[in-house]
Amino acid sequence: MFDPRLAQKAAENLKNIRVKKPLIHNITNFVVMNNTANALLACGASPVMAHAPEEVEEMVSFAGALVLNIGTLTPYWIDSMLKAGKRANELNVPIILDPVGSGATKLRTDSAKQLINELSISVVRGNASEVLSLAQEGSRTKGVDSIHNVDEAADAATILARELKATLAITGEVDLITDGERTFMVHNGHGLMSYVTGTGCTATAVIGAFLAVDHDAVEATATALAYFGFAGEKAGANVQAPGSFQVALLDALFTIDEKQLKEGTKIKT
Amino acid sequence: MFDPRLAQKAAENLKNIRVKKPLIHNITNFVVMNNTANALLACGASPVMAHAPEEVEEMVSFAGALVLNIGTLTPYWIDSMLKAGKRANELNVPIILDPVGSGATKLRTDSAKQLINELSISVVRGNASEVLSLAQEGSRTKGVDSIHNVDEAADAATILARELKATLAITGEVDLITDGERTFMVHNGHGLMSYVTGTGCTATAVIGAFLAVDHDAVEATATALAYFGFAGEKAGANVQAPGSFQVALLDALFTIDEKQLKEGTKIKT
Amino acid sequence: MFDPRLAQKAAENLKNIRVKKPLIHNITNFVVMNNTANALLACGASPVMAHAPEEVEEMVSFAGALVLNIGTLTPYWIDSMLKAGKRANELNVPIILDPVGSGATKLRTDSAKQLINELSISVVRGNASEVLSLAQEGSRTKGVDSIHNVDEAADAATILARELKATLAITGEVDLITDGERTFMVHNGHGLMSYVTGTGCTATAVIGAFLAVDHDAVEATATALAYFGFAGEKAGANVQAPGSFQVALLDALFTIDEKQLKEGTKIKT
Repeated sequence: MFDPRLAQKAAENLKNIRVKKPLIHNITNFVVMNNTANALLACGASPVMAHAPEEVEEMVSFAGALVLNIGTLTPYWIDSMLKAGKRANELNVPIILDPVGSGATKLRTDSAKQLINELSISVVRGNASEVLSLAQEGSRTKGVDSIHNVDEAADAATILARELKATLAITGEVDLITDGERTFMVHNGHGLMSYVTGTGCTATAVIGAFLAVDHDAVEATATALAYFGFAGEKAGANVQAPGSFQVALLDALFTIDEKQLKEGTKIKT
Repeated sequence: MFDPRLAQKAAENLKNIRVKKPLIHNITNFVVMNNTANALLACGASPVMAHAPEEVEEMVSFAGALVLNIGTLTPYWIDSMLKAGKRANELNVPIILDPVGSGATKLRTDSAKQLINELSISVVRGNASEVLSLAQEGSRTKGVDSIHNVDEAADAATILARELKATLAITGEVDLITDGERTFMVHNGHGLMSYVTGTGCTATAVIGAFLAVDHDAVEATATALAYFGFAGEKAGANVQAPGSFQVALLDALFTIDEKQLKEGTKIKT
Repeated sequence: MFDPRLAQKAAENLKNIRVKKPLIHNITNFVVMNNTANALLACGASPVMAHAPEEVEEMVSFAGALVLNIGTLTPYWIDSMLKAGKRANELNVPIILDPVGSGATKLRTDSAKQLINELSISVVRGNASEVLSLAQEGSRTKGVDSIHNVDEAADAATILARELKATLAITGEVDLITDGERTFMVHNGHGLMSYVTGTGCTATAVIGAFLAVDHDAVEATATALAYFGFAGEKAGANVQAPGSFQVALLDALFTIDEKQLKEGTKIKT
């Protein structure tokens, strides 16, 4: 059974984003900057992309959330992320991290861990291998290679969330969100989402918008992913291929109203 | 009443772009590079994006206009803009500046002012707060916070245009273009334009194409904004959301012919 | 007459990409990163964009092909390309180079030549002036300015391919592919392709995917260009302008099946 309280909350969060239009500061990768900016606009938020170390502290001071994404990282960009993140922490601006490719190369794994270690991060969103690669030396979490089903993934994520003191969102066919205490599953989504580049990164940015209006990180993340997945369902209803799907997804993010979202949200607690 | 001479000129400028296919050299932000390149192609120009200090002077020497946009600036990029701009000035290649976010952070305001001070810039396009943030110490212009209506904005822009010796375009529901002597208002446009990222930046690039074929900066700017806004109107006629709108806008830039533009242009003098 | 064996091979290569989902490592320009990633996903491959010198050697070790594109180059990026390319050579990962703008500025020409000289490159794809600009001092190849028809272009490309020990693909209305021994002509394509930015760069990335499953560089390149051009034909069948065309092109890359491709391929040997 899906939780009606969270369906109601998804609708309220979306309404609040559209009313408050929070500024979302993104330090993100080159591939998805355009998509994420458009998705944030479509859901009602105000995106800004700024990565110069000379201005990130000032920019983040205006923001409702800070999105860090290491998809096309270099050490220069990581330094900017640290600088922005430290200021965000001082100002209680929530940070969400997308550790794109962590676990694949040493630079990505080390950089993601450095961000996790030096900053207080509210939410991490990635696929299972990215998120579980963040386990520190001596973690009690199993590695992704030893995980064979969703229950084992949930166990690993729960342990890791406690160790990292963050909400973790492992997205896939079903999205798993946990802070180590509460665990939610989001059953919204569409198969074509994996054929559009940056869909995960865009989900991360949308979580940023929800975090800006909802201080409960687990619920903000779950409702954001329900909204994003539901937009995918709406988009996929009328198209068969990823070019049209990408256009329809942006349209759906814009046109979904609170009533539709309340009815469409599929979050299990 | 709209000015029929400028409607005629809009059509002529568009025709000349399509015949001459001027090369437009862009040093612009990561978010909009793809959109601006596509918009320039759709209107008939030839875009090039090049930002390495090692090549910008050579590249700008082939160009009909130079577009500088500080949307994702770093000091490295500003140095390239200065280098390209100085060469453009020597060669009489017109420069258009988009001071994205000027007024929001010190880096952006200082960089925009440095470009204005060290280069001879033909046109600046931005929203009211961006453009008016360019006023120097001791300017007679009111700040954007003291401006309450379009008449006050026009007054401020007129004073500032004289001080900066540039044509200023403040875009919004109605676009205001002034060089301090002549002031035009463009009434073309569509509400969905503000839900697509980089629409303003794209307008700036399109002004670049018009400047390449029309040496009267005020008229080039007004006719470019009329064309771009009219494309927005055409795009918005059949779609309801920003994903589809973005596609339809590119289509409209491509399909609008001179006759349609002449009839659709809404410039007040 | 079109060669039925190559039509069959085009279909087989596409099938193999969809089965094997090869990772394609791109070090490419900012303008087209999103398009190329989406095109690679649509054809069934797995794109990754990574340019930090700290990780390119590790990343390329997972890849089925390495795509180098100098569209928005700086010396920093060229260094990364060299680093990735040397490791690719050690691992026998095929490299494809897109020398965007070579011949236009010294930085681009020199950088493209440096890549060609220091790396063993399987395929170079560009327009005639870009490809022919790669001739070294003392080359027997005519410059692009002395070429007046497709036969002269074929002669020049054949000589240059032998000198550079690479497969060259000169794309245009008809695509010419030669390794100096075999020469193929691809007659697929659509006029709207030249009104979408990065179409050439995307073709290059798609060649990368074909190279990952077909070690015969000439045939991999010709079949990739037939597939890409055929997708353009399908896309252009129902749309009249570049915004819609771009969406339809991605859709076509995704929906074309092996049987359609076998029937649609137009390669002359």
